[in-house]
Amino acid sequence: MTVEALIFDVFGTCVDWRTGVAREVATAAAAKGLQIDSIAFADAWRDLYQPRMEEIRSGRRSYVDLDVLHRENLDATLDSFGITGHFSEEDRIALNHAWEKLPPWPDVVPGLIRLKANRIIAPCSNGSIALMTRLARYGALPWDCILGAGIARAYKPDARAYLATCEALRLEPAHVMMVAAHNDDLSAARDCGLKTAFVARPLENGTGQISDLKASSHWDIVAADFLALSAHLDFRPHG
Amino acid sequence: MTVEALIFDVFGTCVDWRTGVAREVATAAAAKGLQIDSIAFADAWRDLYQPRMEEIRSGRRSYVDLDVLHRENLDATLDSFGITGHFSEEDRIALNHAWEKLPPWPDVVPGLIRLKANRIIAPCSNGSIALMTRLARYGALPWDCILGAGIARAYKPDARAYLATCEALRLEPAHVMMVAAHNDDLSAARDCGLKTAFVARPLENGTGQISDLKASSHWDIVAADFLALSAHLDFRPHG
Repeated sequence: MTVEALIFDVFGTCVDWRTGVAREVATAAAAKGLQIDSIAFADAWRDLYQPRMEEIRSGRRSYVDLDVLHRENLDATLDSFGITGHFSEEDRIALNHAWEKLPPWPDVVPGLIRLKANRIIAPCSNGSIALMTRLARYGALPWDCILGAGIARAYKPDARAYLATCEALRLEPAHVMMVAAHNDDLSAARDCGLKTAFVARPLENGTGQISDLKASSHWDIVAADFLALSAHLDFRPHG
Repeated sequence: MTVEALIFDVFGTCVDWRTGVAREVATAAAAKGLQIDSIAFADAWRDLYQPRMEEIRSGRRSYVDLDVLHRENLDATLDSFGITGHFSEEDRIALNHAWEKLPPWPDVVPGLIRLKANRIIAPCSNGSIALMTRLARYGALPWDCILGAGIARAYKPDARAYLATCEALRLEPAHVMMVAAHNDDLSAARDCGLKTAFVARPLENGTGQISDLKASSHWDIVAADFLALSAHLDFRPHG
């Protein structure tokens, strides 16, 4: 198994979006003198993520980048929390940048540094190039380049997101490994011919998480974290 | 002048393509027992670069990435040197990777590290994402992301190459500065509303170089090298 590039899901797999977004929401709310459940707000904001992308995946809407969808979902979430009137256009633009300030899980940066020594590493996220670039600067994620929806103009699990990523690297899908904490992401990548690695993130959705607690299929690798993934790959010749 | 991102021409401005390509050509020729002027070969290969891209800029041909054009130009150069028969398909594929193994000018890596501290840095090159990614790994160029022709599917000085790069960063052109050793590249960028910085590379084409020895217009910054560029930008508030 020759893996020349590793591509990564980001939200949930590399970074703790829930903690990061809740922190930014709490700061913004406090500045307005509002008391809200910032974790519940982060969850509500994120709950709109899949349905909003589905409008694009289904063809009912042309591709727009995730920053635009996040902003629409922010407006809807402010509405549902009954606090719309407290946030000006400028406040909303600022709060939408919450998605660029998400803490990496502790193993991610040291793991990526090791993985990068022998292979190309890049995000294959639904986040835009702009978002992924700023998030990488925030968390010191040492990507070689930014791939995914931003270059494919299609949202995972649409096959084009994976295939455009491989094509941009001029690599056959069989030489590219998708790394994700979400079984459905890996399933779509495998359908495109990519190799797959599962790393569970059991706290992505908090202590009550019920989905993706473990691998649901025979992925090429199942690793406890990115350091274990690195050890796994380097143990095998040409792995 | 608020500059939030610096985007860079790469061949000539960041890396010494002539020395790098000539070295790879010399190695490949020696392996075949051939004696050729490897610098002349590098120059001849590069001389086909602009005419080949012009076919695409003019609309006579659909966009294909630079790796494809480099390969076509390699075949033509092997022909013109009368050594076509010595290089198999596999040899040519290998030699075409010469463009991924180019030495950065000495100021480039330390300069980019400083410039990256306060601003997004990215190539805006005619090289593909695949080529730029591997070249960055070879030379330790610490880009935040890879932009330029690979995402625009258009070759500089086509305006789309600059504008798609700014759009990918979600930045107004006025907040992006193009850095290049080529006056025509800066002129096209300025026409798109970008800021401009000129850094002369008087040895790009060897000791007999006659073009681009100095700034031909009032660019926003003219700096001796990337370290001087960094000092220039950091001296100015919001520079």
